[in-house]
Amino acid sequence: MTPYAAPVRDIRFVLEEMLEHGSLALPGFEEASPDLVEAVLEEAARLAGEVWSPLNASGDHQGCRRRDDGGVTVPDGFSEAYRAYAEGGWNGIGVSEALGGQGLPEVVASSVQEMLHGANMALGLCPMLTAGAIEALAHHGSDEQRAIYLPKLVEGSWTGTMNLTEPQAGSDLSKVRTRAVPCPDEEGDHYRLFGQKIYITWGEHDAAENIIHLVLARKPDAPEGNKGISLFLVPKFLVESDGALGARNDVTCASIEHKLGIHGSPTCTLSFGETDGAIGYLVGEEGRGLNHMFTMMNEARHKVGIQGIGVAERACQHAFAYALDRTQGRSPRSGRNDCSISDHLDVRRMLLSMRARTDALRALALTCAAQLDVARHGGSEDDRKTAQAKVDVLIPVVKAFSTDQAVEIASLGVQVHGGMGYIEETGAAQLLRDARIAPIYEGTNGIQALDLAGRKLQRDGGAALSALIDEVEGTARALSATTELVPLGEGLAAGAADLRAAMVAVLEAGADPERGADAVQAYATPFLSLAGHVLCAWQMGRAALKASAAIDAGSDDPFYTAKRQGADYAIRQWLPVGRAQRAVIEAGMASLAAFDASAH
Amino acid sequence: MTPYAAPVRDIRFVLEEMLEHGSLALPGFEEASPDLVEAVLEEAARLAGEVWSPLNASGDHQGCRRRDDGGVTVPDGFSEAYRAYAEGGWNGIGVSEALGGQGLPEVVASSVQEMLHGANMALGLCPMLTAGAIEALAHHGSDEQRAIYLPKLVEGSWTGTMNLTEPQAGSDLSKVRTRAVPCPDEEGDHYRLFGQKIYITWGEHDAAENIIHLVLARKPDAPEGNKGISLFLVPKFLVESDGALGARNDVTCASIEHKLGIHGSPTCTLSFGETDGAIGYLVGEEGRGLNHMFTMMNEARHKVGIQGIGVAERACQHAFAYALDRTQGRSPRSGRNDCSISDHLDVRRMLLSMRARTDALRALALTCAAQLDVARHGGSEDDRKTAQAKVDVLIPVVKAFSTDQAVEIASLGVQVHGGMGYIEETGAAQLLRDARIAPIYEGTNGIQALDLAGRKLQRDGGAALSALIDEVEGTARALSATTELVPLGEGLAAGAADLRAAMVAVLEAGADPERGADAVQAYATPFLSLAGHVLCAWQMGRAALKASAAIDAGSDDPFYTAKRQGADYAIRQWLPVGRAQRAVIEAGMASLAAFDASAH
Repeated sequence: MTPYAAPVRDIRFVLEEMLEHGSLALPGFEEASPDLVEAVLEEAARLAGEVWSPLNASGDHQGCRRRDDGGVTVPDGFSEAYRAYAEGGWNGIGVSEALGGQGLPEVVASSVQEMLHGANMALGLCPMLTAGAIEALAHHGSDEQRAIYLPKLVEGSWTGTMNLTEPQAGSDLSKVRTRAVPCPDEEGDHYRLFGQKIYITWGEHDAAENIIHLVLARKPDAPEGNKGISLFLVPKFLVESDGALGARNDVTCASIEHKLGIHGSPTCTLSFGETDGAIGYLVGEEGRGLNHMFTMMNEARHKVGIQGIGVAERACQHAFAYALDRTQGRSPRSGRNDCSISDHLDVRRMLLSMRARTDALRALALTCAAQLDVARHGGSEDDRKTAQAKVDVLIPVVKAFSTDQAVEIASLGVQVHGGMGYIEETGAAQLLRDARIAPIYEGTNGIQALDLAGRKLQRDGGAALSALIDEVEGTARALSATTELVPLGEGLAAGAADLRAAMVAVLEAGADPERGADAVQAYATPFLSLAGHVLCAWQMGRAALKASAAIDAGSDDPFYTAKRQGADYAIRQWLPVGRAQRAVIEAGMASLAAFDASAH
Repeated sequence: MTPYAAPVRDIRFVLEEMLEHGSLALPGFEEASPDLVEAVLEEAARLAGEVWSPLNASGDHQGCRRRDDGGVTVPDGFSEAYRAYAEGGWNGIGVSEALGGQGLPEVVASSVQEMLHGANMALGLCPMLTAGAIEALAHHGSDEQRAIYLPKLVEGSWTGTMNLTEPQAGSDLSKVRTRAVPCPDEEGDHYRLFGQKIYITWGEHDAAENIIHLVLARKPDAPEGNKGISLFLVPKFLVESDGALGARNDVTCASIEHKLGIHGSPTCTLSFGETDGAIGYLVGEEGRGLNHMFTMMNEARHKVGIQGIGVAERACQHAFAYALDRTQGRSPRSGRNDCSISDHLDVRRMLLSMRARTDALRALALTCAAQLDVARHGGSEDDRKTAQAKVDVLIPVVKAFSTDQAVEIASLGVQVHGGMGYIEETGAAQLLRDARIAPIYEGTNGIQALDLAGRKLQRDGGAALSALIDEVEGTARALSATTELVPLGEGLAAGAADLRAAMVAVLEAGADPERGADAVQAYATPFLSLAGHVLCAWQMGRAALKASAAIDAGSDDPFYTAKRQGADYAIRQWLPVGRAQRAVIEAGMASLAAFDASAH
């Protein structure tokens, strides 16, 4: 596998030039100077490239193993690489200083996450899940719970997991059956949990001293459905009042899954209460477990989008390296025999498509991260509210569109390699296998589309998305006002118009009592795809403006020329495919509504 | 993995209703009565479903193993399943009676191939390669070679391979270096071959008595480039003049590849002449090896397209079975809790998209097969020429579009399964892994696109494609003349207009000495994608007309309603995405021409 070089320059282009380091000016980020951010990115790139990346192929090959004692052995080197990460203080960079973190802006934390996932997605999942646990406890944990668990989780010496899914409860979590039985008063204020959870990422391992499981479960007297579900904290090792580790709790790894990819990440089936019940503690309010889980799910979804981008970037690097190195055929331009295959325009098409899309997805995800920063740290409540509304709309797009595109980009990467792409040794195939999970977990991409076209769009009548489309139109006008980017302005304006028209159609369908939820569901995925294409094209339009400004100011750095080519491709040759989704929506839902799967 | 039920009804719908059993009326097919064809399809379905399909998952899991003695052990049961196929006479069904086959029409042989690949793609590759060897020898072998080798190959007791690729010679075969040294006169008229070939499918195995390798190599005095390449026949075991097997030839399996999928198919590196040279015999004319190879490559490409369709069909069956069985969430229509997930319109969208695309690809591939029948058996030379011209245009589309779509369909199949799709045990992931090779081998899909937009389109000024577009327009008019299919007629007409306009643009670009080959290459893949969408939509338009006719005639078979829904989806919700490729072509090639991979 081609070594991974974290795309520091590309990330800095987004942070510094496109976003103009916006987050750094917010109250609370006074210490995050541009110099510090630069140093953080460089140091993260070193960790990703030198420590995490070399284990990516070997981890895939070796995979995880459940031992006879019920423990799980992760691939060689993973525990050490994880500890290097934790000891370097990386786990807390985006966590607020009040909780023991470094309180750096989300744009910086997201950039670091991209590097780590690009280097080693299977390993990156471990801290990603811990971040969710930190978030849940920070928002909903009692003072005591926060005092006991947060410091260890933030420093990364303990890791966290999310226990949601059960065999009968996947996308529909209201079906959770795991029981949490209150203990007799004399025993304490805790519960004993009984049940089985599946697909628990990093559910068991020895890379950290303890594992803190956050578990959705139901009290015996709880009502059916969502309102009966509460959130519980179940440590692998019980924690004494002085913080020392006590007895092993009654939670065990029953098996691990044999998956298409992310072999280095143990996906566990966890049994709670095989003997006398797993001791657990209620987190937050009884009956509000799902709400508490959703607090952190929004950010987890952003992180999965970032993960897709990390893998897409690595697929780009892999394909570019191969295409520049591999010679085959005659160049139609130079007439030279044995030209590099990157000389063939059909290969260039694949490379440019991979690069332009990856750049666009990154810019959109970091734009969303910048809005997350404002939503938390903005100077006025108005600022914070407006930013949060944008975040709410952007997150399902970042999650679903980035991950769907990452699969396509990784698949194109395989294709660039020709026959070599199909041989596992090359490494291109692993990226496709790894990427393929991201459209599924943390809410399938179909669920993301419903979240966007249903809840997010319908509840404010499209106001937040409309404000974003206004910004797209502003960028289109700015492009049209240049001398050399007019076709990009026209293309982007047309895309914005399509998105607005489709939004109106989806809003009207949702408001129609006859069609309602059904129509929204029929249109959801095409609508999210259209939104993703237009918002990504918008980012590339902004990139083109910045690149052109640099060129006009006299820069002869080929970096800017490349960015402008990528923007040209994204708006003129990628966006049209997304724009077709307007026609898909306007064709209506009749064929889907009438469809009977059992007759096909 | 869900058991495979060969789609006999769907295939018969295409053969009998859409193609009206056209091939059966051709001279030479007198014995192929509709009843016989039906019996053949039913019997093939049994072999596929009962013998080949049960080995698909186990073969993937077990894979192939190169033994210390240099032999290759294929998965348990594969040799027996292959022999059941050969002993059943299946290997010769499409081979002419003069060569010992059964001489059934290509439409029938292709239908059987689809079933076998759907049942077990890895095993299906073995006879697929043999078919290529039969074709090459039938066209270019000497009388003696045909007499010695063809009967065994046709009956399937020997298998064949294609030895083209070398490490430095992939898409560019002019770089082949394997040497064929003429033996001294007293030794005979054969050659001794020295060199290494890679990616040799079923290059070594024990499932048959002998393996006949067809090998591209170069005589010591041969000129550089294509014209120095000849075709040689190298048997694994030499064949005595009485047909008995003699000594082991000097060709050995150096290693087998560890691949993303098709684990049951041994992909070998073959060494020729490790000791005193592999004995080989010149096939056809010296220096015309590449031409001879291309004779059979056209049909091999059709077969790879069929293979994609087989896997796509299986992915459909797998996804439908899961979606009908899995319950989750509340139906927005019935309000029922725990509805089948096929009740959710977003899941329906995926299922209908998979089904409609698979049906469309099958109809197009069988339409192409029917033209192949006419090209060989048509009553007049005019008929044969016209059909061959259509075949020439259709084959790159069938190969590339079917296989690209098969990957997308298999990936959608994974998505329908949610988290289960990522677990290897489920089987959905294997279909994606298997399908992913088809866009790569037998000429990458980029090469197919160049063949279409370059050679095939430019040499007749688009005449053959234009004739096909005329037919598409005819179907559009027929749809528009109905009462209930008018929107399909409009959609199809618009698609035809886009394809015509894009064709003109590609022809103009190709004729422009300034842009020429470069422009054609820049437009090739978008053009093939557009052609694939329009031609598939055409097939679905034809299917809708037949289905509507059946319904109008009083049929209440839900099969016809389902076909009409599929057509509605294909033309109104799938075609628009393909039509966007016109805009991609019209945006021009500037960004690709200026692209410098080393700057990105």
